[in-house]
Amino acid sequence: MPAGKAKQRASLSAQENLRVVLVSTRNPLNLGAAARAMSNFGFLHLRVVHPYDVAFREARSAVGASEVLRRAEEFSSLASAVADCSLVVGTTAAHHRALEQPVLRLERAAQTIRTHLASGRCALIFGSEKVGLLKDALDHCHFLLHIPTRNAHRSMNLGQAVAVCLYELARDARLPKQVVPVMAAAADDLERVAAGLCKALALSGYLKPGTESATEAKVRRLLRRMRMQTGDAELVLGMLRKIVWKLQSH
Amino acid sequence: MPAGKAKQRASLSAQENLRVVLVSTRNPLNLGAAARAMSNFGFLHLRVVHPYDVAFREARSAVGASEVLRRAEEFSSLASAVADCSLVVGTTAAHHRALEQPVLRLERAAQTIRTHLASGRCALIFGSEKVGLLKDALDHCHFLLHIPTRNAHRSMNLGQAVAVCLYELARDARLPKQVVPVMAAAADDLERVAAGLCKALALSGYLKPGTESATEAKVRRLLRRMRMQTGDAELVLGMLRKIVWKLQSH
Repeated sequence: MPAGKAKQRASLSAQENLRVVLVSTRNPLNLGAAARAMSNFGFLHLRVVHPYDVAFREARSAVGASEVLRRAEEFSSLASAVADCSLVVGTTAAHHRALEQPVLRLERAAQTIRTHLASGRCALIFGSEKVGLLKDALDHCHFLLHIPTRNAHRSMNLGQAVAVCLYELARDARLPKQVVPVMAAAADDLERVAAGLCKALALSGYLKPGTESATEAKVRRLLRRMRMQTGDAELVLGMLRKIVWKLQSH
Repeated sequence: MPAGKAKQRASLSAQENLRVVLVSTRNPLNLGAAARAMSNFGFLHLRVVHPYDVAFREARSAVGASEVLRRAEEFSSLASAVADCSLVVGTTAAHHRALEQPVLRLERAAQTIRTHLASGRCALIFGSEKVGLLKDALDHCHFLLHIPTRNAHRSMNLGQAVAVCLYELARDARLPKQVVPVMAAAADDLERVAAGLCKALALSGYLKPGTESATEAKVRRLLRRMRMQTGDAELVLGMLRKIVWKLQSH
């Protein structure tokens, strides 16, 4: 198997090992948003713990409800929802509370979770919109993570918090190369553009007598600052030719 | 000043330089969600371009509407909304479209944006919930970014996409070490250069009848690829004015 494929497959099975657990969610829109972010980032296993019943039924039956939401598993206690997970991580906005568990910033927590997912199941728990995770829920957690929001406005919308956490888990620290390679124009392309531009400037009267070589140098520096690409040099040359031709034809 | 404080202050002023621009947003909940994520991550300047009116008024007047939303600036065109920005970045889910602009993954795009924010203003543009950014909006962009979602479900909820992008920009806020600040030309300078060039092209006969708007879009993209600096835009404008004057005087 090529290395790329192998890596992709490994990453897929790691994503298979995550359980997103929503506890006491009240707003059906938040349930839908969480499920959508899960689908976006490839984490497909949702568990809900005593959600507000109406909200859950409404979200699940909504037109366009995602596959993730339709297949969500419902649990009556957090203990049962995380029973088969060997790492349990809670999310919290409030790191000013006296917390018993270690609190890690998302970037660091994600490293630990990713490592774990390679071989074992992990539950990532989000509390209710109003109060977050209560103390008895936190006690199920190996550690807590917080998203580094600013002190003046710490608490995130639930759907957005889920999206940010899953993005960080799916985020690849090794960056791919730029999608479109940029081919910078070669020096001789730039010289031809400079010549065309100087000709247009001469014909238009921009060049004052005696300043030709100074202006030429100025144009040359201008074109280098601009970082022109290969195809663009051709494009600009075509424009200049037409302009020069018109200026000459009078 | 302790190093930590100095870093925080520099980072704050960098965040001051971002403008989040929402184009044709229809859902008041998405406007509210975008504003909330901005407040969470410390990016406080929101601009909206012809939003669905009812939605905007509703979101703005909602109980608990954020300070960010209340202070949002409204614009009637994208050009005016990005006029004072020297880097313009669009967001897209669809990197299968034949796109004229380079498309970067969020992680890499964020590096470029952060570097730019240290010395200049940047607009980060999000299109409407239904169709994203249309082609004429993309033509205002220096490059596009996409969030690395999975192929089977690429398109994100607007509020979540804003949250993820701003999280990445605020993430791990080590500041860029930019040695020589380059003052990139602002969008309205580029627009004036584009207008001058199009006029010269029209007068020279380069523009074929019926191709005016396509050529205009082409010129706009060309100028964004070139990364023109502030003073250079003035220089080029002066040249174009002389050329146009001469072409007209016959």
